[in-house]
Amino acid sequence: MPRTSKRGTALDHSPIRGLMPYARSAAAAGRSVFYLNIGQPDIPTPPQALAYLRSQSETIIKYGPSEGLTLLRQQVINYYRRFDAQLAMDEVYVTTGASEAIHLALFACCDPGDELIIPEPFYANYLGFSHISSVNIVPVTTCLEEQFGLPAPEAFEACITARSRAILLCNPGNPTGQLYNRKDLLTLLEVVKKHDLFLIVDEVYKEFCYDEDFTSVLSFAEYREHVIVLDSISKVFSSCGARVGFLISGNEEIQETVCKQAQLRLCPPHFGQQLAIACFEHGRGYIDEAIEEYRHRREVLYRALQQIEGLGCYRPAAAFYNMVSLPVADATDFCRWLLTDFEHHGKTLMLAPAEGFYFNRELGKQQVRVAYILKEQDLLAAVDCLKLALERYPVALTSAQRSS
Amino acid sequence: MPRTSKRGTALDHSPIRGLMPYARSAAAAGRSVFYLNIGQPDIPTPPQALAYLRSQSETIIKYGPSEGLTLLRQQVINYYRRFDAQLAMDEVYVTTGASEAIHLALFACCDPGDELIIPEPFYANYLGFSHISSVNIVPVTTCLEEQFGLPAPEAFEACITARSRAILLCNPGNPTGQLYNRKDLLTLLEVVKKHDLFLIVDEVYKEFCYDEDFTSVLSFAEYREHVIVLDSISKVFSSCGARVGFLISGNEEIQETVCKQAQLRLCPPHFGQQLAIACFEHGRGYIDEAIEEYRHRREVLYRALQQIEGLGCYRPAAAFYNMVSLPVADATDFCRWLLTDFEHHGKTLMLAPAEGFYFNRELGKQQVRVAYILKEQDLLAAVDCLKLALERYPVALTSAQRSS
Repeated sequence: MPRTSKRGTALDHSPIRGLMPYARSAAAAGRSVFYLNIGQPDIPTPPQALAYLRSQSETIIKYGPSEGLTLLRQQVINYYRRFDAQLAMDEVYVTTGASEAIHLALFACCDPGDELIIPEPFYANYLGFSHISSVNIVPVTTCLEEQFGLPAPEAFEACITARSRAILLCNPGNPTGQLYNRKDLLTLLEVVKKHDLFLIVDEVYKEFCYDEDFTSVLSFAEYREHVIVLDSISKVFSSCGARVGFLISGNEEIQETVCKQAQLRLCPPHFGQQLAIACFEHGRGYIDEAIEEYRHRREVLYRALQQIEGLGCYRPAAAFYNMVSLPVADATDFCRWLLTDFEHHGKTLMLAPAEGFYFNRELGKQQVRVAYILKEQDLLAAVDCLKLALERYPVALTSAQRSS
Repeated sequence: MPRTSKRGTALDHSPIRGLMPYARSAAAAGRSVFYLNIGQPDIPTPPQALAYLRSQSETIIKYGPSEGLTLLRQQVINYYRRFDAQLAMDEVYVTTGASEAIHLALFACCDPGDELIIPEPFYANYLGFSHISSVNIVPVTTCLEEQFGLPAPEAFEACITARSRAILLCNPGNPTGQLYNRKDLLTLLEVVKKHDLFLIVDEVYKEFCYDEDFTSVLSFAEYREHVIVLDSISKVFSSCGARVGFLISGNEEIQETVCKQAQLRLCPPHFGQQLAIACFEHGRGYIDEAIEEYRHRREVLYRALQQIEGLGCYRPAAAFYNMVSLPVADATDFCRWLLTDFEHHGKTLMLAPAEGFYFNRELGKQQVRVAYILKEQDLLAAVDCLKLALERYPVALTSAQRSS
C-alpha cells in the first residue's frame, strides 16, 4: 500500500477540534455542552446582509476575479480609512478566509527552512500552516502573569538569524485577548526595518477592543513595504462559514506573488463575497452593538472566574478569549474528563486546552482558553459547571496515572 | 526592502489568465470578445439550486464540519453509485473547489522533491500546484496526431524513480478532450500497484462524454488504496464561482492526512455547499440537457474548424475543449495579436495558447486550446473571426521578430 508523505504524517490534528469526538459522545448521551472552546460567535450574521445575498438574481455563478470582487475590495479600502490606513486597490486581495491569507503570506515570505518569529501562546493553526509551508517557528514566550504583554524588542532580536523572514503577530490576540498598542507596533516595525523582515499581523479581532482604540499596523504608511495584514469577516460579522478573508500589503513584490497564487486557485467563494459586500455596506451599527455585547460578556466571565478558588486569570483587553490557569496537573486531561465524566443538572462544558497554543507545549499544561461567545446566562451556567467540576476532579491524578 | 521568497518569485503567472489585460483593453476599446479561452460555461446554474440557496433561513453562518456538510457528502456517495463506485462517508471530503483538492492530494502524497508523473499536455495549474508543493513533474508526452491517447504502460514505467509518488491523470482531459477507457485505467492501476504509487484522477469533466460511457477510477474497488479522485461541481453544474469540490480516497492514511489539512483551514464555503446539495438533489435532468448541448457544440466547432485551411484538429471525445494546431509560428503571439490588432465587424476572440499546458513548452508552440462553452451562433461567429484572422496575420513573423 502506498504511504502518505512524511510531512502529511507529521502534521498534527487541530488541538481545538481534537476533543470534538468526546463532545459528540456527551451530547449523544443526552448531556448539553456549553461550547466555550471555539471562536464561533452566537451573534446573528447581519440580517440585511443575508437578505441581500438571498435577493440576488444572477443566473450563472461564474468564476470571479482571482483578486476578489472589485466592489468588495473597494469596501475594504473604505473600511480601513476608519483605522487611518490609506489603501490602494492593488494592496487588497480577497481570500478564502483568513486561513488562506495565512497560507499565502507564509509562501510569499518564506522558503522552506526559513524562520518565522511568533510570540507564544499563539493561534494554534499557525503551527499547522508553518508546517505545511515547511517554515520553522521560533517562539518568543509571553506569560499569563504579565497578561501576555509584548516582550522587549531585544527578545525578538535575540531570535533573529540569517533564516528569519518575518515576525507574525495576532493583534488583538487569540488566545490571549491582549492588545498591542501604537508604541508596541512601532517598536516591532523598527525591528523588522532594521533586519529587513516582514511584520505579518493577523487583525481579525480588531473591532473587539474594550479599553482603548485599536491601531492597525497599516496606519504606519512609512513601513508599508514591511507589512502584511491578514483579516476576515468571520468574527466581525459572525460569518465564519462564509469563508471570506483578506490579505493586504503595500509591498509590490508580495502583491505580485499573491496575485500568482490567487490565480492558481482561480477565485474566492462568490456567495461569501456577496455577503461580505452587504456586511460592509450595512455593518457599522451592527459592529457597535456586537462590541457592547462582547464587552459585557468579558465582564461577566471575568467576574465569575475570579470567584473560583485557585484559578488564575486577568481581564483581557480585546478579542473574545480569556486564558486561564487551572489548579489541575493536566488541563487537557481535565477538559476531556469534563466531557466524559462530569455533569451538573445534565450539563457540562467544553474548553480549549492551552498546550496547543504553545510551541513549548509544557508551558500551557495547566491553562485553558475560554471563549466568551455565549450569552450571559449561558456563560454563568458554564462557569458554575467549571467551579463544581474543579471541586470534583481528582486533582492529584496526572494524565499518565489516569491512562495506566 | 524585504524580498519575497524564491519559490514565490519562481511561481509562474497563470498562462490562461495572462492575456486578460489585452482582452480588457480590447473590450475597453469597444470591441466585443468571444471568450473561448477559459472553461467558464455560459449554461445557467440549476435554477432550483439557486432558488434553494436563496430560500434558506439560517440566521448565523457558522463554521461547518471540516470534512464538509454530512448531507452533501451523502449525496456525493449517492451520485457515485451511478458510476459503479460504492463509497463510505469517510472517503469523501468537501473542498474549496477541485483546486484545493489538488493541493491537498499533492501534500498528502508527496514530500518536497518527490515526483509526479503526468501525461502532457495537462491542465496548466498542475504546474503551479506542483511548484507550491515543491513536487517535480515528470511528463509523459502525448500528441495531437494521436488524439492525445494514453501512451503504453512502458512509457510511464520508464519515468518511475525512487522519488515517484503518483501518476496524475485528468479524465476526461483538459485541455485535450480525450477520454481514457476502462482498459486504459486498468493498465495504469496495474502500474501503480506494481510500483506502490498513487493514481490521482481529476474527474471534473466526467459527465461530458459524447461517444462512450465514462469509467470512474473509483469503480475499481480492489485498487481503492491506490486511488485519489478530485472532483467539483464547477463544470457539471455550471457553478464555478461557488468553489465546491471533492477529494475522494479509500486509502485510510490519505483520509487521515486530508482530515488534518481540512481541520487546518476550518471548513469549506457554506453557501457553496448549500448550492451543491440542491444541485445533486435536482440535477439529473439538468445534467442530461447540458450534455446534449455540449455534444451539439462539439460538432458545430469541429465542423467549422475543419473548414480552415492549414489548421490541425480532431473530434474530442469528452469535456468541452479542443486542442488545435494553427499555421502560425507562435500561437501565443497570435493570441495576443487577436486582442491587440484584429477585429472583424467590431469582434475578436480569445484563445488559450497551448504552451502553458506543456511541461516542454515548445511542444505547444503552434497549438491553442479552444473551449466550446458558448452557444452555437457565437461559436460560429468566433470561428469566422479565427479564419479571417489567420488570413490576415503575418504568418512568417516570429515572436522575436515582432518584438524587435
